[in-house]
Amino acid sequence: MIRVGILGYGNLGKGIECAVKNNPDMELKAVFTRRNPEDVKILTEGVNVYHVDDAVSKKDEIDVLILCGGSATDLPKQTQEYAKYFTVVDSFDTHARIPEHFANVDKSAKENGNVAIISCGWDPGMFSLNRLYANAILPGGNDYTFWGKGVSQGHSDAIRRVEGVKNGKQYTIPVQAALDAVRNGENPELTTRQKHLRECFVVAEEGADKAKIEAEIKNMPNYFADYDTTVHFITEEELQRDHAGIPHGGFVFRTGKTGWNQENSHVIEYSLKLDSNPEFTASVIAAYARAAVKMQKEGMSGCKTVFDIAPAYLTHLSGEEIREHLL
Amino acid sequence: MIRVGILGYGNLGKGIECAVKNNPDMELKAVFTRRNPEDVKILTEGVNVYHVDDAVSKKDEIDVLILCGGSATDLPKQTQEYAKYFTVVDSFDTHARIPEHFANVDKSAKENGNVAIISCGWDPGMFSLNRLYANAILPGGNDYTFWGKGVSQGHSDAIRRVEGVKNGKQYTIPVQAALDAVRNGENPELTTRQKHLRECFVVAEEGADKAKIEAEIKNMPNYFADYDTTVHFITEEELQRDHAGIPHGGFVFRTGKTGWNQENSHVIEYSLKLDSNPEFTASVIAAYARAAVKMQKEGMSGCKTVFDIAPAYLTHLSGEEIREHLL
Repeated sequence: MIRVGILGYGNLGKGIECAVKNNPDMELKAVFTRRNPEDVKILTEGVNVYHVDDAVSKKDEIDVLILCGGSATDLPKQTQEYAKYFTVVDSFDTHARIPEHFANVDKSAKENGNVAIISCGWDPGMFSLNRLYANAILPGGNDYTFWGKGVSQGHSDAIRRVEGVKNGKQYTIPVQAALDAVRNGENPELTTRQKHLRECFVVAEEGADKAKIEAEIKNMPNYFADYDTTVHFITEEELQRDHAGIPHGGFVFRTGKTGWNQENSHVIEYSLKLDSNPEFTASVIAAYARAAVKMQKEGMSGCKTVFDIAPAYLTHLSGEEIREHLL
Repeated sequence: MIRVGILGYGNLGKGIECAVKNNPDMELKAVFTRRNPEDVKILTEGVNVYHVDDAVSKKDEIDVLILCGGSATDLPKQTQEYAKYFTVVDSFDTHARIPEHFANVDKSAKENGNVAIISCGWDPGMFSLNRLYANAILPGGNDYTFWGKGVSQGHSDAIRRVEGVKNGKQYTIPVQAALDAVRNGENPELTTRQKHLRECFVVAEEGADKAKIEAEIKNMPNYFADYDTTVHFITEEELQRDHAGIPHGGFVFRTGKTGWNQENSHVIEYSLKLDSNPEFTASVIAAYARAAVKMQKEGMSGCKTVFDIAPAYLTHLSGEEIREHLL
């Protein structure tokens, strides 16, 4: 059994807990939190919640520690720190800072003989993998990534910061005409507006000026101004009833040509339709946590991404089994 | 530059030749044939065609030899034989015999310190990879593979063996309703008939009994009897004009649930739409040929499949570049 520790018990941490339950070769060993451990109620019976300060003292009881903090301030510190003591996996997703994060974690993991997998999930993660495979197969082609339909936390937060807004949720939606054009091999050049729509469900405070709220959202630079945005005003009750989930998903395409005179076209498409963004992310992380433990046992060390890990490491099945049943 | 040799110059061999042209870090070094080399005209200027008996004598001029023979009788002998002298890649696709082929090639490749990649292409190959990744992420889910729309050589051959048939081509077509049900997460149980249609374009010999031909095709056991099959009679001219291509493609799905009570559903979909089956297969093989050469240089040896190869080996880009641009 792979003994899993979770550091940080928010949506992602809970998702890891569920993924551990769904993987027969894994068991949850401990949850670490910055809150008062007594205030954190987890789902798994018989597993203790500890303060994060006690994590290192439990290192011999844990095969892999999954870091479920945020990319903005938590993971840049946590992953390199805990890679000193544990095999670790994180879901660091600030694309621009990945090279720096990789270098820091690699140093710490190598010096301490540990495997650390960073930027694991679906984007970065499964989408990245599909970009890499498809780029290697069709050099000289075009890449397209679409996100949604799904909830963007960042855009939902932005709505909630508008004056007069009590609550709100934002869905990112790929434009169907753009998807169709890419799928037909038309290799369109797409503007930001042509790729995604933004749909907002807003609960206004009593007496607030809805027209003003709508205008402020639609004209918000960076978040909404470059998109076709629709705003629906609903009640708090409707928001809780119809928009409580955290669905997401998206599409990765690569289109390219082959043949002596580039006469044949090809379309590679990978897509995800997810009821729960954090639970699916957690499921990807669980598979890579298994990989991390296997690689650590083989004596590897250092920082790895999904690009560096042979697919066979992800499964509990043997080489014989996967060649017989999945190849 | 990676120096590529091609053994066998049919559709796949030609596809490899084109893929080499499209990959800036590869050059074609030689083509080996069982035919009289003087009768084999290739597209690349300045590259020699040799008889297959001369292949081993050229081993120091070639970094990777791509075996483009058939899975029925060629590859079971060729891959283990040439793995003694070369880094090799094949596209062995007889699923049931993969374990045996793997064992034979592994022994020969290990004894001679070479890397040999088998069963490379899109199915087995990219489809297998997607089955493995998705199985690792969603344990306890359901797999679905659909093929087409595309030309099945085996079924086209079967048509051509029917009495009174001069020529013919068969398309395998996934049933749209089945695709939709899977995509909607309905987890349908599908019969053979519910998954694929078969569409045949047949050129009858003069005076042949078309009704008899149609009945014989539709009732042919294994090939057509279990499917809804349509038969169109066309002229040889129409067949050459409208059905000369070798398109193919397909869909790999995995659906599964997450959450403490399995309350959230997820759909992972990978699909290919290919104008040329052999050229796309060749493009996958070219990427894995690069991987084979890199792995050989690192001192690895033995038989590998797509499951055993970290994605980063497939690209000519550095780890820094792929982390920065594709992760």
